[in-house]
Amino acid sequence: MAYKIAVIPGDGTGPEVIREGLKVLNAVSHVYGIKFDFHTYDFGGERYLKTGKIIDAEEIEELKQYDAIYLGAIGHPDVKPGILEKGLLLRIRFDLDQYINLRPVKLYPGVETPIKEKTPEHIDFVVIRENTGGIYTGHGGATRVGTPDEVTTQVMVYDRKTVDRCLKYAFELKKRRNQISASYAAKPLHLVHKRNVLTYAGDLWFRAFEEMGQKSYPDIPRDYLHVDATTMWFVKNPEWFDVIVTENLFGDIITDLGAMIQGGMGIAAGGNINPEGVSMFEPIGGSAPKYTGKNVINPLAAIEAARMMIDELGEHKAADAIQKAVATTCTRLKSLSAGKMGYSTTEVGDMVASLIS
Amino acid sequence: MAYKIAVIPGDGTGPEVIREGLKVLNAVSHVYGIKFDFHTYDFGGERYLKTGKIIDAEEIEELKQYDAIYLGAIGHPDVKPGILEKGLLLRIRFDLDQYINLRPVKLYPGVETPIKEKTPEHIDFVVIRENTGGIYTGHGGATRVGTPDEVTTQVMVYDRKTVDRCLKYAFELKKRRNQISASYAAKPLHLVHKRNVLTYAGDLWFRAFEEMGQKSYPDIPRDYLHVDATTMWFVKNPEWFDVIVTENLFGDIITDLGAMIQGGMGIAAGGNINPEGVSMFEPIGGSAPKYTGKNVINPLAAIEAARMMIDELGEHKAADAIQKAVATTCTRLKSLSAGKMGYSTTEVGDMVASLIS
Ligand SMILES: CC(C)[C@H](C(=O)O)[C@@H](O)C(=O)O
Ligand SMILES: CC(C)[C@H](C(=O)O)[C@@H](O)C(=O)O
Repeated sequence: MAYKIAVIPGDGTGPEVIREGLKVLNAVSHVYGIKFDFHTYDFGGERYLKTGKIIDAEEIEELKQYDAIYLGAIGHPDVKPGILEKGLLLRIRFDLDQYINLRPVKLYPGVETPIKEKTPEHIDFVVIRENTGGIYTGHGGATRVGTPDEVTTQVMVYDRKTVDRCLKYAFELKKRRNQISASYAAKPLHLVHKRNVLTYAGDLWFRAFEEMGQKSYPDIPRDYLHVDATTMWFVKNPEWFDVIVTENLFGDIITDLGAMIQGGMGIAAGGNINPEGVSMFEPIGGSAPKYTGKNVINPLAAIEAARMMIDELGEHKAADAIQKAVATTCTRLKSLSAGKMGYSTTEVGDMVASLIS
Repeated sequence: MAYKIAVIPGDGTGPEVIREGLKVLNAVSHVYGIKFDFHTYDFGGERYLKTGKIIDAEEIEELKQYDAIYLGAIGHPDVKPGILEKGLLLRIRFDLDQYINLRPVKLYPGVETPIKEKTPEHIDFVVIRENTGGIYTGHGGATRVGTPDEVTTQVMVYDRKTVDRCLKYAFELKKRRNQISASYAAKPLHLVHKRNVLTYAGDLWFRAFEEMGQKSYPDIPRDYLHVDATTMWFVKNPEWFDVIVTENLFGDIITDLGAMIQGGMGIAAGGNINPEGVSMFEPIGGSAPKYTGKNVINPLAAIEAARMMIDELGEHKAADAIQKAVATTCTRLKSLSAGKMGYSTTEVGDMVASLIS
């Protein structure tokens, strides 16, 4: 039996990095005897500009038939910000109920972090970002647009069920990680919010966190941090963290900062997870128009996304093989930044593929 | 004539750092012949716990009679988060219409930043945070609280006037800074938002930014950044920034990160500005309960707040004298962190006061 994978290369450098990810998956396929059945979709800015179509209900239904989705990048310089993001990326996240955004923040040996005195043992945590609620629901609106009396609202909506299912995922992940290493187990599960200002939503998250912890995970220490302070500790004391759980918007912000301290967009990947359904994996960098077609973009983030995908599919050994190959490759590149790797996109993909064993 | 200053030492270490700030203002008073008339208010957690009173309408009216307000810290471990913040700090910001939060992010020579390869010339910018709108308005609510069906909303509200007056302040500040140095002038005014997701509010901010820039400040280059990406560039390329303007919540988050890259809570200060009314100045750190009463907290942030206050009052020479004294003090301290300065709180205050000339 083969895993059915929907591949959405998307815009800009998306196709270039996905090509290398597929190369590595093919290498894994040979070595580990895993079969993949890839189907490519042309969703993205080019198709939208040509046809006016982003994605329709039928195509969404089709995506639900896959075992996983592998996404490159979405975003086109000629399309107004918001259209493709909301119409495609967020639409898939919402319609497929991918309610967890899983973002490992891990500094591989040999990778340069912009913060001082931190080594791989200091930067090794995971952010669980709620992925289908909050201000991303799109609630709100605008009146008297374009006049001096324009008023806009954006509504952060959270209900208990949305909060609870996200917290449950985080507690379960923390439980698993605590079994992996004593150093993980020594750290609490962190809830990040802004409950001193967002008192309605913050209170809901905090109460749900305390109740679930007390009742179902009494052995897991809990801690709470404001989102503003969290950005400080990411830079000053990333070793405090093991698993962080947070709401959608705050998660968006702190995971980008997390990407930077783990070496930047060249390496950072994320999963949009529906634990009971179809999940989607992506490098978290954008479509990087200025590097498009130059064969200089770093494909490691896309390769990491592929690793997360097969790990989620249950292929842990093969996932570990990719991780080892990526880690080795990191020690060989001059830099993880586009154009400064000392190798082309294709060569980096070849290197990882050849290291799969 | 004397400047009438309302002093709110507040909670925790607030009184300790305000005491040093007042010491420095008294030194300035002697050297520059500026007179201050200080009135102290006991607003804060202690009073609230004793009397149940936070601040009332009459006291708010009284505050409006001052030339400025000098605040220590608000927040008490025995008071539920949100009560004092909303009841006191945000209430003053809102009722006195302090619609600008001014946050200089400047690395002084001799101060340790946690990011690599950055020196004072790389970290010298100002964040203009809108301070009376957005999700801080408190719009929203909760239903079926404590049940499995609880739903909460928090509403980010922005109208064109609120956006425009903030942008105007930012463009004017940028214009002034461009005249100070060619290196400032070489950088754009940055708008930070999340307009690819918060399309209603982001569109309002972006349109207002573009229109005001094109019409009234055509010589000032403009740039736009998403808030998530901004956290990355603060850490990787802080030298890109001169003046940043952003909405309230995003400003809250990025200014804390800004505080960290300029050396932390020991040095970071901010102003809550009503350009036509009464402004309030504060060190941006919290009440730091664990350091309270130990004479180990760093008073430089509170002294910086005092500097910003008299600068806003028009006493630029005296403000510059404080800045010089603070800069010199920075080169003498072992660290800016509480308990690690190599000097006590009192000694640091004495040092700055003695350097005023
Ligand atoms: C492109 C954008 C809509 C998206 C988000 O805000 O979620 C991105 O920043 C991310 O983190 O995946
Ligand atoms: C204490 C809190 C309400 C406040 C805010 O969120 O504005 C603080 O973080 C700040 O930045 O001044």
